[in-house]
Amino acid sequence: MTTSIEQRLQQLGITLPAPAAPAGSYVPVRRSGNLAIVSGQLPMEAGSVRYRGKLGAGVSLEDGQAAARLCAVNVLAQVKAACGGDLGRIAACLRLGGFVACAPEFTDHPKVINGASDLMVEVLGEAGRHARAAVGVPSLPLDAAVEVEAMFELR
Amino acid sequence: MTTSIEQRLQQLGITLPAPAAPAGSYVPVRRSGNLAIVSGQLPMEAGSVRYRGKLGAGVSLEDGQAAARLCAVNVLAQVKAACGGDLGRIAACLRLGGFVACAPEFTDHPKVINGASDLMVEVLGEAGRHARAAVGVPSLPLDAAVEVEAMFELR
Amino acid sequence: MTTSIEQRLQQLGITLPAPAAPAGSYVPVRRSGNLAIVSGQLPMEAGSVRYRGKLGAGVSLEDGQAAARLCAVNVLAQVKAACGGDLGRIAACLRLGGFVACAPEFTDHPKVINGASDLMVEVLGEAGRHARAAVGVPSLPLDAAVEVEAMFELR
Repeated sequence: MTTSIEQRLQQLGITLPAPAAPAGSYVPVRRSGNLAIVSGQLPMEAGSVRYRGKLGAGVSLEDGQAAARLCAVNVLAQVKAACGGDLGRIAACLRLGGFVACAPEFTDHPKVINGASDLMVEVLGEAGRHARAAVGVPSLPLDAAVEVEAMFELR
Repeated sequence: MTTSIEQRLQQLGITLPAPAAPAGSYVPVRRSGNLAIVSGQLPMEAGSVRYRGKLGAGVSLEDGQAAARLCAVNVLAQVKAACGGDLGRIAACLRLGGFVACAPEFTDHPKVINGASDLMVEVLGEAGRHARAAVGVPSLPLDAAVEVEAMFELR
Repeated sequence: MTTSIEQRLQQLGITLPAPAAPAGSYVPVRRSGNLAIVSGQLPMEAGSVRYRGKLGAGVSLEDGQAAARLCAVNVLAQVKAACGGDLGRIAACLRLGGFVACAPEFTDHPKVINGASDLMVEVLGEAGRHARAAVGVPSLPLDAAVEVEAMFELR
């Protein structure tokens, strides 16, 4: 199973980054029984936010989707760290919460957050099929275009 | 118990619709143990969004409440499908997350989301008494006025 | 353990208030197994919202942090009531969801919500280290500046 997820990541050309440090007195992942709650992740790359701004006000749909995908990669990086490096301990991605920084006229939130949802299914297969909520927000930390939080089931 | 919930729906004149298909690579309901996480539901009716726009900017409080109620009906439709049609498997509605598309001056989010909360209690009785968060958002998918996500306990 | 948490509250000069009544047909705390889901709490004090308005549009960062801290105090008050007054039954604060009412240009949401996160760690110690999501919203119930919802593990 570990091999499988790691192999899919390799096939997709994805290298999970070192997980980002939290911006306050909280933790990236909190365990309770077999649940793992993952803090909201931003589209960080190499220590800074790669996608800034708002959908419908300068950020294209394509960049929004790429931002969501990058958030999801960062979610997986946090879960991997919480699993001691063993992605095979992921039983399921249960839920994604997707927040899209946007203008009040923007209505394509689902297409944006599909960037995160698609990544989960590509990497985890059926175990990656999750429930989700996708909503707009006026702004996000560090002017990020997208934020994604998650809940996983571990084994 | 099934009879009871179905009977209450009938008394309320509510026919649960066919559950809406998700707008991406996610699922309407994800199970983990006895938890069921329900994706954000929009005020869809017969395949399209019935309540569009924003509270405090064209959408009345009454329409906002009706939108929230319709979201809650759609939540129940998804849970019913996830239970193989047997609403008697609902042990409790644990949480509703209510998102109200609104102008920045709007402050009556609780009254809007009460449309969803009241429905849950009307249909499920004491088992329908849930925790909740109600917040404003600048916009929602498909220009919906309200979105409601949920978590249930099943038996 | 009870003594310990109560002692820390006393050392911090915090008296947990009587828990606020919910603004609708929902409950402040919903239990499922050892999980306790806490409804979104506002910065209420003595029955009214102490911190109103928006960050980046009249509310200072310091007041935003104080608002978040007050929301967290109110979260603890609700959990205490749900535990029959025995804070020693708190095993962990698992998650905080922080909503910051703000102007679209505001980007310091993490600093605001640290007001809540810091309080949890000050009061609960290691058990208070939680996952979290912090996002902006255009407005909140009763014009509150901050809203914080939570999930706890009880014993």
